Parts: sequence; C-alpha cells; structure tokens
Amino acid sequence: MIHPRLTFALSIMEALAIFAYAISGFIEARERRLDAVGTFLVAMATAFGGGTVRDVLLERRPFYWVQHQGYVIAIFVMSLFAPVVLRATSRLISQRALLVADAIGLGLFSVSGTSMALDAEMPRFTSVMIGVLAGVFGGVIRDVVCNEVPLLLRDSRPYATCAFVGCALYVGLDYLQFDNVYAVLIATGFILLARLVTFRFDVRLPH
Amino acid sequence: MIHPRLTFALSIMEALAIFAYAISGFIEARERRLDAVGTFLVAMATAFGGGTVRDVLLERRPFYWVQHQGYVIAIFVMSLFAPVVLRATSRLISQRALLVADAIGLGLFSVSGTSMALDAEMPRFTSVMIGVLAGVFGGVIRDVVCNEVPLLLRDSRPYATCAFVGCALYVGLDYLQFDNVYAVLIATGFILLARLVTFRFDVRLPH
Amino acid sequence: MIHPRLTFALSIMEALAIFAYAISGFIEARERRLDAVGTFLVAMATAFGGGTVRDVLLERRPFYWVQHQGYVIAIFVMSLFAPVVLRATSRLISQRALLVADAIGLGLFSVSGTSMALDAEMPRFTSVMIGVLAGVFGGVIRDVVCNEVPLLLRDSRPYATCAFVGCALYVGLDYLQFDNVYAVLIATGFILLARLVTFRFDVRLPH
Repeated sequence: MIHPRLTFALSIMEALAIFAYAISGFIEARERRLDAVGTFLVAMATAFGGGTVRDVLLERRPFYWVQHQGYVIAIFVMSLFAPVVLRATSRLISQRALLVADAIGLGLFSVSGTSMALDAEMPRFTSVMIGVLAGVFGGVIRDVVCNEVPLLLRDSRPYATCAFVGCALYVGLDYLQFDNVYAVLIATGFILLARLVTFRFDVRLPH
Repeated sequence: MIHPRLTFALSIMEALAIFAYAISGFIEARERRLDAVGTFLVAMATAFGGGTVRDVLLERRPFYWVQHQGYVIAIFVMSLFAPVVLRATSRLISQRALLVADAIGLGLFSVSGTSMALDAEMPRFTSVMIGVLAGVFGGVIRDVVCNEVPLLLRDSRPYATCAFVGCALYVGLDYLQFDNVYAVLIATGFILLARLVTFRFDVRLPH
Repeated sequence: MIHPRLTFALSIMEALAIFAYAISGFIEARERRLDAVGTFLVAMATAFGGGTVRDVLLERRPFYWVQHQGYVIAIFVMSLFAPVVLRATSRLISQRALLVADAIGLGLFSVSGTSMALDAEMPRFTSVMIGVLAGVFGGVIRDVVCNEVPLLLRDSRPYATCAFVGCALYVGLDYLQFDNVYAVLIATGFILLARLVTFRFDVRLPH
C-alpha cells in the first residue's frame, strides 16, 4: 500500500489542498473584514480542520501542521498580505475562485483521507466516511466560526455527495487492486469534475 | 464493576440511544431541507458526538462508531429513506417525537457515560460531568452545525439538569453498592421520566 | 526548563485564568438567561476549552480539569450563585469586568500554553500558535455555543494579535535564556497591558 510515488503524490496533493482551503478561508475572512490574525486563524481552521479530525480519528501524531511548520508560516505570511491581493479581485471572480478552490480541496482531502484510513486498516465504509469528513470538516468549521449555516447544509447542490461517491470509487479501485497513483488521480479528478459539472448545470439533490 | 448482564444492557442501551439521537438529527435535517448526505452527517454528529467526546476524555479507542461499522451503515441507509418516512408524520407528532427521542437518548447516554467514567476510575463528580456531556453534546453539535442556539440553552425547561440529577443518582446507587443493572435502569428511567414530567407540567428553572 | 518556582507560578496563573474565563462565561450565560446547569456548562467550556485543545495538541493527559476535580466543583458551586452575584452589578460594570477578566485570561493562558509547547519541544512558531489557541479558544467556544459571531472576529480591536505578540515575546526571552519566571511575568503582563491600552485608546487593526 505504501509506495514512494504515492507518498510523493499524497504530499503534493496535501500541499495543494491546504493552500486551496486556506484561500477559501481568506475569502470568508475578507467578507467578515477580519484583521490579519483573525484571517490567519480562520484560514488555519479551514486548511487544517479536516486533516486534524482525520488525524484524531486515525490516531496519527504529530498533527500534519505541527510536523510541517513551513505550511503554518507560509499561511501566516499569506494572511498578512491576503487582504491586499484579494481586495483587487472583483466580487464575481471571488465567488468563482471560492468554488474552484473548494472543489480542489474537497477532492484532494477526501481521497487522501480515505487512502490513509485504508492504510490504517479501517473497514471500507468507515474509510469512505473518514474521507468525506476530512474533505468537508474544514469548511464546516470555517462557516460555524463565522456564524453561518455551513455552505454544506445551506446548499442543495451536491457537495458531500460528490466526495462520498469519489471516495467510494477510490475504495472500489483499491479493491480491484488498481495502481494506487492512478486510483488517487482518478478519484480526485472525479470529485473535482463532479462538483464543477453539477454546479455548472445547477443539478440539485431532492430533499 | 464489569458484569456480563451490565455489558449486555449497556450495549442495548447504546444502540437505542444511537437510533433515538439519529432520529432527532433526521428531524432537524428535514427542517433544514438537507439532502441525504447532509442528513446523514447531521444524524451521525447527533448520534455519535456525545459518545465520541466521552471516548476522547476517557481515552477509549477505537471509537464506538469505528468499531461498530453496522451502526454507521444502518444510519446511512435510514438517512436515504428518512425524509420519506418523516414527511408522512405531521408537524405536531414530529415535535413530540423529537422530545421523546431526545429524552430517551439523554437518559441512556448520560448514565452509560457516567458508568464508563467510573469504570475508568474517574473521580465521582468528574464522572457525573462526563455523563452529562455524553448526554447533551450530540444535541449541542446538531444545533451548532445548523446555526441555532442549542436547544439546551434556548429552553428554560430542565434538560441538562435532569441528566445531572440522574447521573448523581447513579453515582449514589453505585456508592451504596446497588446491583449495577438496577442502578442503570433506575437512573436512566429517572432521567426519562424527569424530562417528560417537567416538560408536561411546564416546569421552568429560575434564571 | 522545568523549575519549581515556574511550576508554582504556572499553577497560580492557571488557577487565575480559569476563574477569569469562568466569570466571562457567567456573564455571557446571564445575558442568555441560562439556568444553573447551562451556566455551568458554558463556564466550563470557556474556562477549560483552550486548555483542553492545548492538551489534545500536546498529548498531555489526564486533562487539567479531570486531574483537578476541585476547580470543576468550585465552578459548579459558583455557577449556582453566580446569577445572584452578577445580577447585582450594573450593565456598565459587567462590560468592563468582561473585558478585564478576558484580558487576564488571555495573557495567562497564552503564555502558559506557549511555555508548555516549548517544554514539549514543539518548534518555536508552532509554540506561539498553540499559545494563541490556548488563549482564545475558550472564548470562541463560548461565543459559538451561544450562537454569536465570536468576539474575536466581530471586533477590530486587537485581541489574538496581543496574544500573538506576547507569545512571540516569550519565545524571544526564552531564546535569550531569560529566567523563566521573569519571562512568564513579562510576557503575561505585556499581553494584559497591550489589550487594555489598545482598548482604552480604541486602537483598531486595518482590514
């Protein structure tokens, strides 16, 4: 299961996901007009909330962000300058950027969470759930802290559903003994595309 | 302290409490018009939130819901069909159902939490507190995630107070070396009745 | 690093911080008109929320409040009588009391959190972050549970910023091998003063 290429691919994925989620935290923080430290805390919670819950559930220590101090410092420096950068972009673009950044993070965190849960010998359905939690929890914390009903719940467009199907796809490919690097890429790409396509064509879940 | 009948009784209690809380999550999710995955996540947080906090505090691993994948799958299947089932019941019944389901869960989770804390050799007052937390925390998460002031805080009718008195009663019976099965049943029944009776006669706490 | 005077000073600090935060929980609970048990739960979350998160991150067990049952009982007894005590004070005084109590807790919890993180051999920047989290997290939980946008985010007056600068100051003094007792006192005093002075002169952060 552990595989140098996969380990490397997972590291890159995690880095991308962290920055994508941090940016969605910056955008939320700008709308709330937070100062640099507040922006930093919301960005940290968004970026590392899902991964920290995953690590608590799988008893992985030290936490990813404790071990990789570089990410924390990078997000700190970015949050000092983020308002300047973000203020330049128009409202429309920021809405789209929020969506795409969120979709990238959703795919990357969900699939890597499921992969780590399978590595930790969790049962298959539980692994899918831990993946979905790893993907959506940062955004839920971001919205709860900013006193909004989480985007996850407000919106009838499929979000956790995309992550759920993608993680189940990953578990299926893993069961069929697909090469892990391809399984990760296929499942992540599926979630990203599913989120963007269902959003574009305004697919809504029945309720 | 560990006793085959008690272990069995605690397993049955936990199963009942999990489904009672999941149903209160379904009702909340229906009011928010969530899709199946959103419903599932809220039901899971309501059902396992208190128990997970209890397990973190008592360092019990793996988490109950990780070990018993069956509950997770059962709640998942129920959340696919829950809207259909719940939509059939009228508003009045769902309000009453919410109350009774909540009261059952409150009694079962609080007393089993206190019992596990005593087994883990926590001091008596701390055991009562962990029991109350195990009982009320799932509902607090449900309400916080749905961006409501928790029912626990909104309402001057005794709720955590019932759990507190019932858990203290359990600790007292345990101190008097009552048979554990009876102590659990008496304390759980006390909390259920106290909640329903104080609600029925609209008893309100001073504040 | 461990030093009998420092250990003693940290114990005193932690006791003061716990009561200061519990009081800010009482004030919030009074505004929400909670009953005694609700008041107790909010006070507990405010007082021990930051320390519990710190202990989870640093893997310190048992939790401070589990080990020191006395604090839990003291806060419980206080929450039975708190409404009576607090109701006597006027609105103006309670606002000021909230501020000062909060500033004391902020200074004490942040610096002791950073100190414990350094003792646990966390890297320096991470230690500053854990200190800030230990200082602000109780208040964030208090506000989130009461369904308010956390004071931390609502307010453009420096709050987490004060804790951040004070914790960085402590790390700097520690690096310069300052006597720990003085380093703790200087950094804590700095945070307390910085918070009160910036509040008094209505200093606001750009956003």
